[in-house]
Amino acid sequence: MSGAAFVTTQVLRFCDTDQLGHVNNAIYTVMCEAGRAELMAAAGLIAPEQGHSVVIARLELDFLREMNWPGEVRIETEVARLGTKSLQLRQRLSVGETLTARALSVLVVIDLTTRRALPLSDAWRAALAPYLVPA
Amino acid sequence: MSGAAFVTTQVLRFCDTDQLGHVNNAIYTVMCEAGRAELMAAAGLIAPEQGHSVVIARLELDFLREMNWPGEVRIETEVARLGTKSLQLRQRLSVGETLTARALSVLVVIDLTTRRALPLSDAWRAALAPYLVPA
Amino acid sequence: MSGAAFVTTQVLRFCDTDQLGHVNNAIYTVMCEAGRAELMAAAGLIAPEQGHSVVIARLELDFLREMNWPGEVRIETEVARLGTKSLQLRQRLSVGETLTARALSVLVVIDLTTRRALPLSDAWRAALAPYLVPA
Amino acid sequence: MSGAAFVTTQVLRFCDTDQLGHVNNAIYTVMCEAGRAELMAAAGLIAPEQGHSVVIARLELDFLREMNWPGEVRIETEVARLGTKSLQLRQRLSVGETLTARALSVLVVIDLTTRRALPLSDAWRAALAPYLVPA
Repeated sequence: MSGAAFVTTQVLRFCDTDQLGHVNNAIYTVMCEAGRAELMAAAGLIAPEQGHSVVIARLELDFLREMNWPGEVRIETEVARLGTKSLQLRQRLSVGETLTARALSVLVVIDLTTRRALPLSDAWRAALAPYLVPA
Repeated sequence: MSGAAFVTTQVLRFCDTDQLGHVNNAIYTVMCEAGRAELMAAAGLIAPEQGHSVVIARLELDFLREMNWPGEVRIETEVARLGTKSLQLRQRLSVGETLTARALSVLVVIDLTTRRALPLSDAWRAALAPYLVPA
Repeated sequence: MSGAAFVTTQVLRFCDTDQLGHVNNAIYTVMCEAGRAELMAAAGLIAPEQGHSVVIARLELDFLREMNWPGEVRIETEVARLGTKSLQLRQRLSVGETLTARALSVLVVIDLTTRRALPLSDAWRAALAPYLVPA
Repeated sequence: MSGAAFVTTQVLRFCDTDQLGHVNNAIYTVMCEAGRAELMAAAGLIAPEQGHSVVIARLELDFLREMNWPGEVRIETEVARLGTKSLQLRQRLSVGETLTARALSVLVVIDLTTRRALPLSDAWRAALAPYLVPA
């Protein structure tokens, strides 16, 4: 049985544009992180007060369409794979009906003191399970 | 008779934080611009396709409280003064019930080709009038 | 006897531009902070490992000229006033021979645990003295 | 015969950090773009006054090490492949002796009016040839 995407929304800011007139490519990365971080915080993987948080190990990003200010970006995030010490997310950015980017990221939970990767606990797996959409 | 504030909302992003744990001070500036630009676009002062847009000449910003991710920022923008060639805005940022910053800015409409200031037209004055709240 | 400005340099980034073609106004704030933070770290006021850092209470910024990518920004920072619990900085941004902005900021050192302001110690005063340029 | 990397340097800014204490992952993207854009401008592919500029179609980014403020980032950019309508860049970020990230990007030159891809001209190929380092 397959889960469903975690959906969040971001409002574009004037300074997200660059001299090409459109939203700068680094903002696509920012949008992916914004969606990712909300899911990771909701699922308990980002919890600095408990001494751990999430870092990214790899990002693959396909830029499909330009985005323009003003506007809102819909960010859909699915868990593609839950490994022993890392997880993989699949993301889609869209503005209105237009799919503007697709991303794949590999994340690791780290202990904020040792900066070392932590194994993915059963609690985190359970919290992420509703968003698990295998390829 | 006095107008009312133009209200807009921004969603904080994980990368808006800095190593102090809170939202970085430059993001307060970004939030002020985000609110300002939405009002200026709605009132026709930002209109690159018509050859003009708005630039800022002066900013005064009082940082009253820290802001933390995740969260939403409410941005209230009032027109404090409408001059011949410039206008003054008064802004308030808040998170929930907490006022986090107060700002005053002086803006100028420029011709995008000559980069020179344009006089504020009657149409722009009329569009901004509902938000005019003299001190 | 008067001190001299602390000077630092920043390289503009493509994404510092916005849809007006020039460097976005929020980047002026970022540049001011970049220069400020290097001085505050060098003088020992930013020292998270010792439990304290610097926050900004007020910023006044005059935007004098547009800046364009690519380019480098020279940031000059002087201490305008050393109070009991706060200090005031005067800053100038320039690109080549052109002065592009002038800023005044009020800073406070905070204890990172209590988030309360700390009195300015003699060691910090001594470290900042070479940059003290009273009005 | 193989070319050599185009090398440029960026100075980290305080606001490049996030609440994990280190440089935020989106800044790695910004650094890649900063190096890329300087090479593309030097080689004539970014030239808005001539009606064309460069956009990114795909980014692959491996985050190898944390980066911390203050510091400088060395950005090495090589041309991995010159196609008919797109080019591929290979990049390395480092701080001191430490390699902190590796990136691969696919770029396209677009006509700023039609937003359509332009074929890579002989002049652009010649300008990029010194940086061509096939896998």
